[in-house]
Amino acid sequence: MTKMPRSNALVAHGGGPTAVLNASLAGIVEECHAQPGIATLYGAAGGAAGLIADALIDLSAEPIANWPAIAQSPGSVLGSSRQDLVDADFDQMTKLLQRHNIRYVFLTGGNGTMRMALRLSEACRARNYEAFVIGVPKTIDNDLYGTDHTPGFPSAARFFLHALKFIGSDNRALPGVTVVEVLGRDAGWLSAATLLAREQEDDAPHLVYLPERPLPFSRMASDVESVYRRLGRAVIAVCEGQLDENHEPFGADVRRTSRAPLALNLAHVLSMRLSKELGISARSEKPGLLGRSFASLASPVDLAEARECGRAAVRSALAGETAVMVSIERASNAPYQAVFGLVPIQDVSGRTRPFPEAWIPAHPTLASPDFAAWLDPLLGPIQTLGRLQQSPTPRQSG
Amino acid sequence: MTKMPRSNALVAHGGGPTAVLNASLAGIVEECHAQPGIATLYGAAGGAAGLIADALIDLSAEPIANWPAIAQSPGSVLGSSRQDLVDADFDQMTKLLQRHNIRYVFLTGGNGTMRMALRLSEACRARNYEAFVIGVPKTIDNDLYGTDHTPGFPSAARFFLHALKFIGSDNRALPGVTVVEVLGRDAGWLSAATLLAREQEDDAPHLVYLPERPLPFSRMASDVESVYRRLGRAVIAVCEGQLDENHEPFGADVRRTSRAPLALNLAHVLSMRLSKELGISARSEKPGLLGRSFASLASPVDLAEARECGRAAVRSALAGETAVMVSIERASNAPYQAVFGLVPIQDVSGRTRPFPEAWIPAHPTLASPDFAAWLDPLLGPIQTLGRLQQSPTPRQSG
Repeated sequence: MTKMPRSNALVAHGGGPTAVLNASLAGIVEECHAQPGIATLYGAAGGAAGLIADALIDLSAEPIANWPAIAQSPGSVLGSSRQDLVDADFDQMTKLLQRHNIRYVFLTGGNGTMRMALRLSEACRARNYEAFVIGVPKTIDNDLYGTDHTPGFPSAARFFLHALKFIGSDNRALPGVTVVEVLGRDAGWLSAATLLAREQEDDAPHLVYLPERPLPFSRMASDVESVYRRLGRAVIAVCEGQLDENHEPFGADVRRTSRAPLALNLAHVLSMRLSKELGISARSEKPGLLGRSFASLASPVDLAEARECGRAAVRSALAGETAVMVSIERASNAPYQAVFGLVPIQDVSGRTRPFPEAWIPAHPTLASPDFAAWLDPLLGPIQTLGRLQQSPTPRQSG
Repeated sequence: MTKMPRSNALVAHGGGPTAVLNASLAGIVEECHAQPGIATLYGAAGGAAGLIADALIDLSAEPIANWPAIAQSPGSVLGSSRQDLVDADFDQMTKLLQRHNIRYVFLTGGNGTMRMALRLSEACRARNYEAFVIGVPKTIDNDLYGTDHTPGFPSAARFFLHALKFIGSDNRALPGVTVVEVLGRDAGWLSAATLLAREQEDDAPHLVYLPERPLPFSRMASDVESVYRRLGRAVIAVCEGQLDENHEPFGADVRRTSRAPLALNLAHVLSMRLSKELGISARSEKPGLLGRSFASLASPVDLAEARECGRAAVRSALAGETAVMVSIERASNAPYQAVFGLVPIQDVSGRTRPFPEAWIPAHPTLASPDFAAWLDPLLGPIQTLGRLQQSPTPRQSG
């Protein structure tokens, strides 16, 4: 906007952090530095709470040399929040923007954050304050409309895929039943991704359940029994948001949140019930927050795209866009190439993108080839497990 | 043993796998290939069970090209077992050795496996069968006597240290109380290792409990309350084998095993009790088996030493040693250098090496500097977290 005098910019994070959220922030910072139209870039400390309390950090003053390490770190160096917002909060935020001459606003997050971006742009318009509000996509759950995938998801998928591979190796060596809880709330993207851990027919995960389908406990028990009878072991991946046929989390302890109730010990409850039902000892693993923070396994594609989403957001704001979200569009699958576009936030906010019906496995062992082809280029290098060439069933010698 | 005709060798794994157990196996394989005194190297499928059932795999026939990938993979390509053994089993094993002309026996594992090695060497002597039985150390718990540390432990320490770092980043961004369960049974080595995740005073883990000290729940609750009052958040690392002042696991569900009872949901139970006691919402993470299988974070020192332990075992057997365990001796700490020695298995088996009294933190936040200096060279590169140079407490602007 060459017609405008130099203005300030602001960035805030919403919702749970990811392994690449700080990479998006670094992208915003570097593009703001490159744009003469932007004077100071502020960061809101603690997400929306910082915008309401006027708790800003001057990111333009942060030494350039610090950003490469920040971009590789999980969490959010600005903090985040999950606050429910009321109209008065948006009045407060708009005043803050005016007071600090902030015209460019970047809100990085998922559905809740996009809804906030829409409401903030509306609040600015209602007060005749010209501001350019851009959504930057971010969620490990991959449940945002309007984008091929969301930054954060490929890294979480890469983590859980390796987690199931490694737990599978352990389970093959010392057999038993293991239930692994996978993040994703009520979207099965991450659970489905674990199916790509399988290199051979008898590899873990042996059963993968997606929250898009209610799961009667009796069906899970009979699936596990059948795998156990065949292999003498079973590794099961279950999404944290999985519900049974009564739409209950199998008797797990639950925390009430601003979103759907969150089961706290789903894998444990399932392992105890399986153990009792089948008379087999079973254990559970809950990598939990590691799924969204395990920076050592961040996907290189994801890191690069997250950063580029940040840069694209700044360029879009300066081009006069508002109430839009940066989107990733897949230009080509092999070789993988993405371009960055914009979608109206109106089309994104308040909806959740389900895992496609066509990709839901007919059997909890089978990844849809289309889903695998879609996911594969996003993951980056995947460790192949070494194996003996000889049959895993030893020859009886002597 | 140049005086002996060519004989065969055998390797078996015992107990839980690690990220580097297959590296020890690769070391044994490559050294057996290099030794003209050894004809065929067999692997026992499924640990002791394979030795009893005569289920052997011809490892000499395995293509050399497969070993580099196997050496980098977690689990155990031979399988393992936790079987309790009786005298008749050792008769059976000795017969198997005789039948296959196996003179060199390598048993890789922890305390239970070393006890098996001792009994097998005694059974051979009782039958006048000349065999050379060598123990190869392996346990993530680091509770073996006679060695500076055990292969498997540095990699598990590196994993948990990063896990606490990453969970700490997430917790800093979106504050709350998180209880993380750490492996280690009744030895605090791995829990203590997480203290090295702290770069700054307010970093996670904020509280670390070692099973060497009973922990009244009331004390944990008051520790957490005090951290939470100061920082508004708290990350707690608790060993899976932690007991309260009544020597009970805080009401956790327990599985009876051949070793001490194993709590199955300790972190969850603690988080629920903390939540209730302090009126703060709390969650739990249980990386569980990932702690011993996360090959992506295997320590380079650990991988190299595990392999060298395997090689040293073969050389020792051919030099006529028996009923000894390969040990790692620290020749120098800075720069770190290790040499490989031998200890009588008699001095190792049936004991567990506790975490040193002098290194137990006086306060659950403070790592002993001596412990840190001891552990640091074993870990390999540790990711440093990027941070804003500015105060984490934002300036009130405007």
